[in-house]
Amino acid sequence: MSKKVVIIGSGFGGLAAAKELADTEFEVTLVDRNNHHLFQPLLYQVATAALSPADIAVPIRSVFSSNKNINVFLREAVSIDTQSNKVVLSDGELDFDFLIIATGTRHSYFGNNEWEKFAPGLKTLDDALEIREKIISSLEKAELISDKEKQKEYLTFVIVGGGPTGVELAGAIAEIAKKTIIKDYRNFLPSDTKVILIEAAGRILSSYSEDLSESAKSDLENLGVKVMLNQQVTLIDESGVKIGNQFIKTKNVIWAAGNEASELLRSLNTKLDKAGRVIVNKDLSVGENENIFVIGDAACFLNNDGKSLPGIAPVAIQQGRHAAQIIKNSHTSNTRKEFIYRDKGSMATIGKAKAVAEIRKIKLKGLIAWLAWSLVHVVFLIGYRNRFRVMIEWIWHYITNSHGTRLIVNKRN
Amino acid sequence: MSKKVVIIGSGFGGLAAAKELADTEFEVTLVDRNNHHLFQPLLYQVATAALSPADIAVPIRSVFSSNKNINVFLREAVSIDTQSNKVVLSDGELDFDFLIIATGTRHSYFGNNEWEKFAPGLKTLDDALEIREKIISSLEKAELISDKEKQKEYLTFVIVGGGPTGVELAGAIAEIAKKTIIKDYRNFLPSDTKVILIEAAGRILSSYSEDLSESAKSDLENLGVKVMLNQQVTLIDESGVKIGNQFIKTKNVIWAAGNEASELLRSLNTKLDKAGRVIVNKDLSVGENENIFVIGDAACFLNNDGKSLPGIAPVAIQQGRHAAQIIKNSHTSNTRKEFIYRDKGSMATIGKAKAVAEIRKIKLKGLIAWLAWSLVHVVFLIGYRNRFRVMIEWIWHYITNSHGTRLIVNKRN
Repeated sequence: MSKKVVIIGSGFGGLAAAKELADTEFEVTLVDRNNHHLFQPLLYQVATAALSPADIAVPIRSVFSSNKNINVFLREAVSIDTQSNKVVLSDGELDFDFLIIATGTRHSYFGNNEWEKFAPGLKTLDDALEIREKIISSLEKAELISDKEKQKEYLTFVIVGGGPTGVELAGAIAEIAKKTIIKDYRNFLPSDTKVILIEAAGRILSSYSEDLSESAKSDLENLGVKVMLNQQVTLIDESGVKIGNQFIKTKNVIWAAGNEASELLRSLNTKLDKAGRVIVNKDLSVGENENIFVIGDAACFLNNDGKSLPGIAPVAIQQGRHAAQIIKNSHTSNTRKEFIYRDKGSMATIGKAKAVAEIRKIKLKGLIAWLAWSLVHVVFLIGYRNRFRVMIEWIWHYITNSHGTRLIVNKRN
Repeated sequence: MSKKVVIIGSGFGGLAAAKELADTEFEVTLVDRNNHHLFQPLLYQVATAALSPADIAVPIRSVFSSNKNINVFLREAVSIDTQSNKVVLSDGELDFDFLIIATGTRHSYFGNNEWEKFAPGLKTLDDALEIREKIISSLEKAELISDKEKQKEYLTFVIVGGGPTGVELAGAIAEIAKKTIIKDYRNFLPSDTKVILIEAAGRILSSYSEDLSESAKSDLENLGVKVMLNQQVTLIDESGVKIGNQFIKTKNVIWAAGNEASELLRSLNTKLDKAGRVIVNKDLSVGENENIFVIGDAACFLNNDGKSLPGIAPVAIQQGRHAAQIIKNSHTSNTRKEFIYRDKGSMATIGKAKAVAEIRKIKLKGLIAWLAWSLVHVVFLIGYRNRFRVMIEWIWHYITNSHGTRLIVNKRN
């Protein structure tokens, strides 16, 4: 009888693992609570009305349409029973011989979960649509308000967290508020809008080299973003954000400050780091459980220097393949290779024709970094159709500055 | 002082009127509760995962970006005060010298409003996304069910109403359930799915000639749709639909059977027809109110033969222009032209490379009608960007049969 592999999560890691196991003798079940794989690096473009959800998402089923050994299961995994090798689902359970956990992270409010309703994070399509509607609705509300003080609250956008997501959001929102969409309104001017990026550390993009951080900061400032460094948020409520003694009145706060791994990992009864990620063995397995692997953002893989790998797509993809290869080799080989990360570099975009990139020892900024960023993101987008669509969208956007997906669809409030 | 024109609704009629009044001396306010103009004839393609919402919708503001005399007001109009020439909004009010009401219709359940929650209609992007999620979620649920009887309920799709919307939906759903998306599932076959179109009259597409109705019917049947004529729905609940003595068990009912004009029209205190539409004067004005016009689906314009004009885009557009021209000419001319509808024909599509069209005396069916349909719909789509995107999507869809927007985004239930 063929052995059963269960993969939880169909992000970059889970999808890479499933592809590696496609058309083998293993019976693979890919469990996800969403029906789509999401190209998360471009999610901020959905949140800022540049791309449609369908441009950056593919139905998981369609990816494995022709791989008959892969079953897609639209369910939520709740916990792992390591004794009896079972995944407990919201209804039912799944047996496994091998398990790959690739559940990613959610944003974390460092114990202040009550902030979430005023300051949404950006991890899912739902999140992105919520933020898009928040931004566009705020402009609409501001258009109807004549009291300039009151209007300002709707025209102030605060992004908390100066990592890649925060930086990309701040840049894209500044383009909307200072240059593009703003032109369609009659009742306020670009100078009435404010975009503020708050970072707790001494510089933004702290995983990059210092001169790239500096370059990104001045690019943001040229777009009209106020970058506040060394600032800790102490309160977020419906009227605004508190930083130290200063209170910024705003209806628009977006949270891009912290991540936290899934609760599910606790059921493994193994060592977690402070972000709740599983500290994995050198082969990506978990504690004594040779048949259970944790990969991607859910894993804390410590290098020999004691540093953990960053939560980015290339790490997840390489780990997904590595775990799947160990499983594929399991009946012929007893020795397991250690996982070694091959650094492909990292990049973040700041606005039209502006980006920073670090590829091995090479540092890029400005237009050339932005072209590299565009190329890499289009090439790695899953599905020819999406690649083609996004490329067309970007070219169109570049030429016309139009934001095609400025729709308020769901009246959530 | 320049005169104030208020237009309520930015569908085809309202938009045409506003465009006619752009860059004139009138101060125009376009009121809509949505921020986008919707190309409604293609809405069924959003509901069936072929197009993205942004492909068929444009932000109203962006249409009038450069026309400084047109203000866009994102509000809901509640009633009209004909004595003091005011539109009452959900908050606040608007004075007018001239008023154009273009509020369209919602679907009507003929007094059975409790059916709505089981059988959504298709008028807005929200509706379309709800139906899309219903269809895809049903396939997902069926995949997880092993009991064949229970599974069947999720694989049965009932469309009530055999007008253009019902026919187009039935054809598109049959393609999903019999040919395209179905291939990605492991647990059921095309033959396990059922698509049923229920029509109360003796033929579908009753506004077309009899042979085109017949042709559309046999096209649908070739796609695997069961067409039930002369059947009245007597009950819809969570378990299915009742027709006469027959009960069809299904989790998927879509309502495309009737329309009803907006409640707002009642505040005009004038004569309404049985669908709640205002019976307008020959110049589209209302009763004694020379300065108030009702156009498009909200109006019942009686021809000399006593028949009313159909609720289609060309009627709304021509009426919008007509009302706006009367307003433009109001200070130079006291005589008003009667509205005369120039029939541009009508068309409906049934599936890939199948359609029916009636253009003046010319009747088309099959591939040639479908090509005509595609051309007309792409040409009339508002905005070059959308035209281009939709064309690309259709070509892609035609070649690959893929449904690119199969996303379950909002967990509404």
